[in-house]
Amino acid sequence: MSHTTGVKRSQGRNAVSLVDAYRRVRADSEALCAPLRTEDYCIQTMPDVSPAKWHLAHTSWFFETFILLPYLEGYRVHHPAYDHLFNSYYLTHGQPFARPARGSLSRPTVAEIYAYRAAIDDAMGRLLERDGEVSSELAALVTLGLHHEQQHQELLLTDIKHVFGQNPLRPVYREPPAAPERNAPALSWQSYPGGLYHIGHAGEGFAYDNEGPRHRVWLEPFELASRPVTNAEYLAFMADGGYREPRLWLSDGWATLQAQGWQAPLYWERRDDAWWYMTLGGMQPVDPQAPVCHVSQYEAQAFAAWAGRRLPGEAEWEVAATAEAVQGNLRASGLLRPVAAPEDTGLQQCYGDVWEWTASAYAPYPGYRVPDGTIGEYNGKFMSSQLVLRGGSCVTPDDHVRPTYRNFFYPKDRWQFSGIRLAGDA
Amino acid sequence: MSHTTGVKRSQGRNAVSLVDAYRRVRADSEALCAPLRTEDYCIQTMPDVSPAKWHLAHTSWFFETFILLPYLEGYRVHHPAYDHLFNSYYLTHGQPFARPARGSLSRPTVAEIYAYRAAIDDAMGRLLERDGEVSSELAALVTLGLHHEQQHQELLLTDIKHVFGQNPLRPVYREPPAAPERNAPALSWQSYPGGLYHIGHAGEGFAYDNEGPRHRVWLEPFELASRPVTNAEYLAFMADGGYREPRLWLSDGWATLQAQGWQAPLYWERRDDAWWYMTLGGMQPVDPQAPVCHVSQYEAQAFAAWAGRRLPGEAEWEVAATAEAVQGNLRASGLLRPVAAPEDTGLQQCYGDVWEWTASAYAPYPGYRVPDGTIGEYNGKFMSSQLVLRGGSCVTPDDHVRPTYRNFFYPKDRWQFSGIRLAGDA
Amino acid sequence: MSHTTGVKRSQGRNAVSLVDAYRRVRADSEALCAPLRTEDYCIQTMPDVSPAKWHLAHTSWFFETFILLPYLEGYRVHHPAYDHLFNSYYLTHGQPFARPARGSLSRPTVAEIYAYRAAIDDAMGRLLERDGEVSSELAALVTLGLHHEQQHQELLLTDIKHVFGQNPLRPVYREPPAAPERNAPALSWQSYPGGLYHIGHAGEGFAYDNEGPRHRVWLEPFELASRPVTNAEYLAFMADGGYREPRLWLSDGWATLQAQGWQAPLYWERRDDAWWYMTLGGMQPVDPQAPVCHVSQYEAQAFAAWAGRRLPGEAEWEVAATAEAVQGNLRASGLLRPVAAPEDTGLQQCYGDVWEWTASAYAPYPGYRVPDGTIGEYNGKFMSSQLVLRGGSCVTPDDHVRPTYRNFFYPKDRWQFSGIRLAGDA
Amino acid sequence: MSHTTGVKRSQGRNAVSLVDAYRRVRADSEALCAPLRTEDYCIQTMPDVSPAKWHLAHTSWFFETFILLPYLEGYRVHHPAYDHLFNSYYLTHGQPFARPARGSLSRPTVAEIYAYRAAIDDAMGRLLERDGEVSSELAALVTLGLHHEQQHQELLLTDIKHVFGQNPLRPVYREPPAAPERNAPALSWQSYPGGLYHIGHAGEGFAYDNEGPRHRVWLEPFELASRPVTNAEYLAFMADGGYREPRLWLSDGWATLQAQGWQAPLYWERRDDAWWYMTLGGMQPVDPQAPVCHVSQYEAQAFAAWAGRRLPGEAEWEVAATAEAVQGNLRASGLLRPVAAPEDTGLQQCYGDVWEWTASAYAPYPGYRVPDGTIGEYNGKFMSSQLVLRGGSCVTPDDHVRPTYRNFFYPKDRWQFSGIRLAGDA
Repeated sequence: MSHTTGVKRSQGRNAVSLVDAYRRVRADSEALCAPLRTEDYCIQTMPDVSPAKWHLAHTSWFFETFILLPYLEGYRVHHPAYDHLFNSYYLTHGQPFARPARGSLSRPTVAEIYAYRAAIDDAMGRLLERDGEVSSELAALVTLGLHHEQQHQELLLTDIKHVFGQNPLRPVYREPPAAPERNAPALSWQSYPGGLYHIGHAGEGFAYDNEGPRHRVWLEPFELASRPVTNAEYLAFMADGGYREPRLWLSDGWATLQAQGWQAPLYWERRDDAWWYMTLGGMQPVDPQAPVCHVSQYEAQAFAAWAGRRLPGEAEWEVAATAEAVQGNLRASGLLRPVAAPEDTGLQQCYGDVWEWTASAYAPYPGYRVPDGTIGEYNGKFMSSQLVLRGGSCVTPDDHVRPTYRNFFYPKDRWQFSGIRLAGDA
Repeated sequence: MSHTTGVKRSQGRNAVSLVDAYRRVRADSEALCAPLRTEDYCIQTMPDVSPAKWHLAHTSWFFETFILLPYLEGYRVHHPAYDHLFNSYYLTHGQPFARPARGSLSRPTVAEIYAYRAAIDDAMGRLLERDGEVSSELAALVTLGLHHEQQHQELLLTDIKHVFGQNPLRPVYREPPAAPERNAPALSWQSYPGGLYHIGHAGEGFAYDNEGPRHRVWLEPFELASRPVTNAEYLAFMADGGYREPRLWLSDGWATLQAQGWQAPLYWERRDDAWWYMTLGGMQPVDPQAPVCHVSQYEAQAFAAWAGRRLPGEAEWEVAATAEAVQGNLRASGLLRPVAAPEDTGLQQCYGDVWEWTASAYAPYPGYRVPDGTIGEYNGKFMSSQLVLRGGSCVTPDDHVRPTYRNFFYPKDRWQFSGIRLAGDA
Repeated sequence: MSHTTGVKRSQGRNAVSLVDAYRRVRADSEALCAPLRTEDYCIQTMPDVSPAKWHLAHTSWFFETFILLPYLEGYRVHHPAYDHLFNSYYLTHGQPFARPARGSLSRPTVAEIYAYRAAIDDAMGRLLERDGEVSSELAALVTLGLHHEQQHQELLLTDIKHVFGQNPLRPVYREPPAAPERNAPALSWQSYPGGLYHIGHAGEGFAYDNEGPRHRVWLEPFELASRPVTNAEYLAFMADGGYREPRLWLSDGWATLQAQGWQAPLYWERRDDAWWYMTLGGMQPVDPQAPVCHVSQYEAQAFAAWAGRRLPGEAEWEVAATAEAVQGNLRASGLLRPVAAPEDTGLQQCYGDVWEWTASAYAPYPGYRVPDGTIGEYNGKFMSSQLVLRGGSCVTPDDHVRPTYRNFFYPKDRWQFSGIRLAGDA
Repeated sequence: MSHTTGVKRSQGRNAVSLVDAYRRVRADSEALCAPLRTEDYCIQTMPDVSPAKWHLAHTSWFFETFILLPYLEGYRVHHPAYDHLFNSYYLTHGQPFARPARGSLSRPTVAEIYAYRAAIDDAMGRLLERDGEVSSELAALVTLGLHHEQQHQELLLTDIKHVFGQNPLRPVYREPPAAPERNAPALSWQSYPGGLYHIGHAGEGFAYDNEGPRHRVWLEPFELASRPVTNAEYLAFMADGGYREPRLWLSDGWATLQAQGWQAPLYWERRDDAWWYMTLGGMQPVDPQAPVCHVSQYEAQAFAAWAGRRLPGEAEWEVAATAEAVQGNLRASGLLRPVAAPEDTGLQQCYGDVWEWTASAYAPYPGYRVPDGTIGEYNGKFMSSQLVLRGGSCVTPDDHVRPTYRNFFYPKDRWQFSGIRLAGDA
């Protein structure tokens, strides 16, 4: 899928473009909900999933709490209960409503939440269109809020897929594209020399705090697969007993496989002699040429062990993707300044298909400091027991990807659009 | 509340009146949903609760499965997936959808379920309005289906109360009545002589299989409180440390209290120095004159121990209520033929306020046989570890109560409209 | 097995015979432990099981707490921590140590617990051998303590069987008897007329509080199987798909079967083409002629449904067993005075094989009052969600059985020596 | 504590010294058990804890399975069931007995397990004392087995502490030392320049597979505290509300704190106005000068956040400790060849007090390959969701520590002897 927002263009401090970006991102969220019925907005199929209406409300609460209340004189909260209901996890800001109970709330209704959005948008418009320039501090917060909303756009689609995927009726979110005869690119191995590299964000464009500081890492020579693992390749792993051979698996992974009864990626279903899977376009035969998706990091690691390879470290991924980016379609952005720019390596499908599990624990970069205040809870406090994914998936907004982006989930998580790119020692 | 249906009048075998009763009961279910928003239909706040739309669909499935498919020639199921989705627990009829996941289904939508109801109603109309008389077998099944739907009318309101009661917004289902200055009747003790009594259903009117066979029981002399325990009385128990004194409680009850952190009946909430509770009319101050409601059998038993009394056996209750009924407004029904009819004892509030916990395990009456076929799963298979409640509550349809009615829940259950009537040895 | 104690002879108030009975019961407990190694005393294989050393200590604590401390002047507790460690469930007497953690205590050692027993026995000897007569109050408490210890003798063997049964080495507690060629008696059905009966304990001999008051019950005509269900009969149920057919099972029973994966009674194991089971004599081929044992009440009920019968009510059982007893070997005891004494019916194997599940919830008899004080916690507080078993098993002390005895466990419990006697309407 | 074994001297291939080392390590394990009573050997207080007798048996099983069976001609297993009972987690070698049930086994008895050890020792003696030289392959396996047994020596003491610590009697494993007036060294900060370092094992001495390959890492300038955090310092954190302030904690850590009710390190107990803690010498007042111990990584991280510092990365720790070692008492070992050897920094208490939590996820070093065969399960499969600890504790055998040693546990674990050393950016 492709949904483009204007965030990138909003990063300046000019109020007009910021308002413009704000309106486009906010409209994008609502456009994603166009195919939903009222009932679809309310469902939570597991604790990790949030109802669509919660995403719509929470992203509004973010603007209300961190921008309107402190910056818009005379602003009064839209509803006194919403601060409790739509705070996700900011413990330094009140007591969040219990996450696993988000699906227990019929009220506020969908209409009331759209009214909440409209009220927030109205107030935000007033704030950003006041005379004079928007301060850089405010502009930065609005930009953060828009990137935050883009993250939730992806989560909203991810969660809707789970809601529809658990429903025996397997509803269709949108009609699937007429199946293109797309063949996966041929697999090649791209080599990168060892040495000292810079990774992490620096410079002008937007990035989350956890993407910096930019710093040096030493890498041994390595190689990366030119494209993600395909369903055909994953089916070979399955056919070879991949889900029955403990020696391929990490100990925690094997225990999870047994407890959950995993026999295939999430959403896969055996019908007669063929594998099908749930998509946003409903049940479809598994496409052997498409990247395998909805695998946990445990499955990714087991696949790599079976293939005699390993998962990439996040630094390896970023170094390779940066080199790629320089030659690729992100070159013009000016975001990327790798210390070392290897030759053109032909890394493909880094963005727009699947998030790619790395072997790297989500941890602070050297010199990282948690920002002050409630906003400081945005990223840093999750730096435990999660693993980094890199790239971006088919449900990530196009302008929400960048080579330094660090997505993170637990190794057991499968409901994200997560796949596998193999790595090896060169 | 008061909602009257025409079931009683439908018990004959005349198709016209049966159709009439059918239409009225079915319309009642929908009328109860009039105050609901689409979102309210979808929520399941705990495994015991079912979403309102599930109640609407399941009662329709009952008619479709047990009546239309076997009796209406050429009938084809409305939707092939509904048999799985809306089968509650009939294991001899396919595989029911997991109960705790009923709230995970956004589809079918509320509109689709109303369409399902309309289709069922249409087919039922055709079945019942065919030329000729409706067989007694079919009439009995339709009548059972209507009583079944009435049970779900009560459950629907019970569950909606839970859905609204768990929501921090505490929505109002319907405006509360302007508080009448109602004082609880004075408490008196009604005595009944020991002896051999008949209990259980016999004769013409409708009753569930579990209400018979009518049989003899020997009772020692006993007495019953003339009315249920009030909130004022229950508050005295609480103030006297009732929730902190293990010796008042059954062992399982005390363990449950500790595990759940019980300190008051369900829906009670301390605000400043006063107790409030959730009602279908929203949060209200606890009415000291009203019967205590939403207590478990454990709490009922502990209260009785504190009061130096005990809970009634179900036979005691029925004998007393039957005597009462003879003098009361059910006299004309011809249903009741007590062996012994004690003098008018003034038993009050037997119906229309709270279900009254008894000390009796829900077990088959002597000579009870589980009916053949899938319908046999209706009652008998629950005769384990549950306790009988007698009477009928403010959310029970008026024509769904009778002295022989045996309601049953687990002793820990509190979300039903359950209260306490004390008994003692005379 | 057969282990006889002298409790029956101790029921008078003569201190000499009471001391004598005390010594014999206490010695019996230790004799049962003779085959145990030190390690065997310490293990708890599930929360319901207590380590053997805990049984030895807890029965001593009972004498110390309820007799020595209040009655023996100057008595000081043996060890200050034991009151906490060996209190089973008397919440009105301090805070019992968590039951599921009983197996976490390596100390006190087995030797220390034997020393505790010796110290208690010494003090009890001093108390009971003082000049003058033992008061009837004290004699009653000592007698209660001895019956309590006899209960724990049975539990100790029951728990040791579980400890050995869970161990892959399947240790032998005692050599099994050379298999006698014992055939089960032929099955006949014994009929009993309906009518008003007395059940419950009254008179001189010892009984627990829950066996009284003696009271009247009305019974419809019924019949009982002359002997318990055999393994051969149970195997026929299994072979006929008994564990796969939900319509035979109560709803809670079916859910338990599925959650636990039941396919046979506890301790049964398929080896090649034959069923074996764990016994106190180690693994043995299932004896088709022996009564089926280690079944839950759910299994008993499902078997009865399959057989077209039902389980007896506890009153039916007692009335039949009392009639039997009058003609049988208990006639001389003078304990039994049935209101109606039916003809000799030939009820067999009531005692000494298996406890027999009834359909009766464990509830107070009419007029039952919980005794005052801590001792009041002995029985009454468990009168919820458990079911009565009647008779007595191969691990029950011979003089611990009587027709009014009410044993009780949860319907899911299987580690007791519990079996099935069928009943029916006559 | 100090217990020295001869493993280091056994690393050559000379059979005599290997036999000698074998005997000393094996004797050490048994010496550690000298204070235990038979009952103490059997207890498992939580799934992570193994009974002492299991440790004794499992370490013997290791020699039997990986050495005697493949290398000693004609060797037959000591007992056919032991392979199942004492396999810890080698899924490629049969089916291990369920870990949480290790405490459910009274048999084999302690005496039988000592007999097992004696039989293994006898066979190992025969194997190692055969004519001719021991192959290097065999010598390496024996050496691995001895290091494995040393790991279990530490675990055995760690688990015994838990067993005794959960027992209300708080038994004493060994008399505590007469309290020395030991003051913690003054705290200073040791600085290390940034640059490219080598870490990891290489060369002759023994190391686990996970300590290699030796490789390069780039470090920014950093500093380390000269000694671990003391109880006095940790008490200041507690007094300042450290356990009540969510912003100090990682999200997972705060959730764990709330679920577990943490208010202090494991084994700490408030008595009147003072803190006491369980030690191997029984309950003692908390020593303010001693390093804080039995904290989770979550607590370590929260303390560091409170102190305005951070935890070290494992590479930082190793670089600093190696520098230290060169000047310190390990200099003679020849094990350490740091690329860069900073000046003497005075790092203290690296070994012999507490394991020190790092911020580093336990992951394979660049170029790491899981060894072939069952032995390959030793380390690699745990490289997920655990964190590295460095150093060595008071219960680690003296010759079992080295600067490259990577211990690993989950961030929530507290029953290990784990403490805190602070780090910071220089």
